[in-house]
Amino acid sequence: MLSPTRLELSGERFSAVYSFTGDYDEAYRKAKDVCVEQTVEFPEDLIPDDDIKKLIIGKIESFDKTEKGYQAEISFAIEITANELTQFLNVIFGNISLKPGIRLEKINLSQGLYTFLQGPRFGIAGLRQYLGVYDRPLLCTAIKPMGLSNKELANLAYQFAKGGIDIIKDDHGISNQAFSEYQDRVIRCVEAIHRANEESGNHAIYAPCITAMDEQLKERAHYAKEVGAGGLLVSPGIVGFDRMQSLANDDTLALPILYHPTFLGSFVTNPHAGISPYVLFGQLARLSGADVVIFPNYGGRFSFSKEDCLEILRGSTEPMDKIKPIFPAPAGGMKLQAIHEMVNTYGRDVVLLIGGDLHRHGSDLVQNSKLFRQYVCL
Amino acid sequence: MLSPTRLELSGERFSAVYSFTGDYDEAYRKAKDVCVEQTVEFPEDLIPDDDIKKLIIGKIESFDKTEKGYQAEISFAIEITANELTQFLNVIFGNISLKPGIRLEKINLSQGLYTFLQGPRFGIAGLRQYLGVYDRPLLCTAIKPMGLSNKELANLAYQFAKGGIDIIKDDHGISNQAFSEYQDRVIRCVEAIHRANEESGNHAIYAPCITAMDEQLKERAHYAKEVGAGGLLVSPGIVGFDRMQSLANDDTLALPILYHPTFLGSFVTNPHAGISPYVLFGQLARLSGADVVIFPNYGGRFSFSKEDCLEILRGSTEPMDKIKPIFPAPAGGMKLQAIHEMVNTYGRDVVLLIGGDLHRHGSDLVQNSKLFRQYVCL
Repeated sequence: MLSPTRLELSGERFSAVYSFTGDYDEAYRKAKDVCVEQTVEFPEDLIPDDDIKKLIIGKIESFDKTEKGYQAEISFAIEITANELTQFLNVIFGNISLKPGIRLEKINLSQGLYTFLQGPRFGIAGLRQYLGVYDRPLLCTAIKPMGLSNKELANLAYQFAKGGIDIIKDDHGISNQAFSEYQDRVIRCVEAIHRANEESGNHAIYAPCITAMDEQLKERAHYAKEVGAGGLLVSPGIVGFDRMQSLANDDTLALPILYHPTFLGSFVTNPHAGISPYVLFGQLARLSGADVVIFPNYGGRFSFSKEDCLEILRGSTEPMDKIKPIFPAPAGGMKLQAIHEMVNTYGRDVVLLIGGDLHRHGSDLVQNSKLFRQYVCL
Repeated sequence: MLSPTRLELSGERFSAVYSFTGDYDEAYRKAKDVCVEQTVEFPEDLIPDDDIKKLIIGKIESFDKTEKGYQAEISFAIEITANELTQFLNVIFGNISLKPGIRLEKINLSQGLYTFLQGPRFGIAGLRQYLGVYDRPLLCTAIKPMGLSNKELANLAYQFAKGGIDIIKDDHGISNQAFSEYQDRVIRCVEAIHRANEESGNHAIYAPCITAMDEQLKERAHYAKEVGAGGLLVSPGIVGFDRMQSLANDDTLALPILYHPTFLGSFVTNPHAGISPYVLFGQLARLSGADVVIFPNYGGRFSFSKEDCLEILRGSTEPMDKIKPIFPAPAGGMKLQAIHEMVNTYGRDVVLLIGGDLHRHGSDLVQNSKLFRQYVCL
């Protein structure tokens, strides 16, 4: 048996809400399991009646029957996060991710967390100001398909910008292929959009895909900034939420961050396990510095339900103390015809991301982009 | 319509095997979907009959009925990976992670991938040589529970090392909490294990948990090396597989890497979606540089099946050209009594990771560690 431990903690606790499958007993066992597995990972009966047992092990604050099964709010001492986003993720959904029938539904933050979770630099109001667009949804598209030369991609970017699209991003799979080298692409696209803006009076920005290994991520971000890109497309499922946060917090960059959901699907495709869309694309997006969160809209190529999408809307915009609300960017096979419905669902504070469908309305992409804008302004 | 694109590609392709739920038509539609979604993400009917259609879009090489449903092997041009682990992950399971009923089962590598996927530095043979242990399974334990002071953690490390455990790691949730600051902990544990080794003639190593935000990850790794730690505990689910690879490839570190599965569970808890244990804890572990892969053994606190675990054994050890085989480290509530069964299942080339149970055999942890060694050597 260990000797009893005495700890000097602040008493501040944050909490997370989990749902569980199973009957009362099974669900309660799972809730107890979260308390232990996410903290001490140690047989509870071998811990003496001390401060580790009292303060470090998670505490079930409430346990209730819901429509889906059971739900518990579990609190944790703020000190166990070590003031690190990485360890914070580890506490809220680390080892228990490996157990079935447990889903992280919501995070209830406490004041101390805001010292290391500053949230987005821009948020909705900041990005509107940055783009000078106050009175309508923002328009976004992607340059693709992979395989086009940088010259062709830049030509697409030019047409989209000229036609009035606000944010022109790389497709998330275009990184640094030999047929589309990163630095060359960024220079060409920045130049093309700059030229289109001069001609049209628009203020489009280019957000290159900076997904890259280790230190190259930051190198690509800084290169983008240096040559005049206006935003960054980041895939935290691949490069880590902490690095998205670090890019957001970097004052020498000061660029809006678009969060791409690639590689993260397994967290949300099972309604009885994983992380809720509310947390993954809402709360966590904001806490780790995204200004825009891209996710598959209902009714497109993917199979998110409308309820999933409304959860993301709420998670990305509901009040969260100092953390700014951010733009939801429903995407994934959206068509111009869907715009009315999208605006009805998400409201005016939305980034409408339409990719392939812009190519489906004749060969003049400037015209198609103008059509996109018209649909939005109807 | 886009103008036709002509590409100069090598012709080299690698492939991945996916399984699908649904009947023939649904499964085949999903296979086609993987081909498009993981590459061009663009309506196929809008791509002219060119090299993008022929070479960039994934190709279904085979499509078969299996016991579980349907399975397809899909090939991709090696050039689309951009020689980056990050984009490689994006190709094999990026956006399709967001669609239900698709599971990545296996990766079939091609020669060109080995230029940027070098694999583990040590592997099984290298780690045996590093530790000087050739003829038996390796013994591993964790210092915990979270909440103990560094002095107490170092005292545990001392006893484990003295009793003959080979690898003594931090619990994966102990990062840099105020009650267990990282640098102080590493110094104390290294010193304790060094002292135990001198007294006992053992060659135990200490592997601190270096999970940390952004650049601090590398700083912690280098600090560990500097003060004499013998390995590193890395959580790629939180910090990214590319950073694990970067730590493995760093010649100034040259330390064995232990891969912890925290935060990755959602990929493997659904047998009809996500990533197979074979890939996630086997192939990907090796490709991104781990020397030891920790995973929840069957029969413990978690619910992996024996078949899942055997998949991990195969994935971590089956021949994969230049990529060395690595140690599986079944864990998660393992007891000394399970050792015989574990060695029967995994063979001699296994890291036996027993944590809490070492505290369950009386208060003398040196003795308990010796007992652990005895069980292994029976």
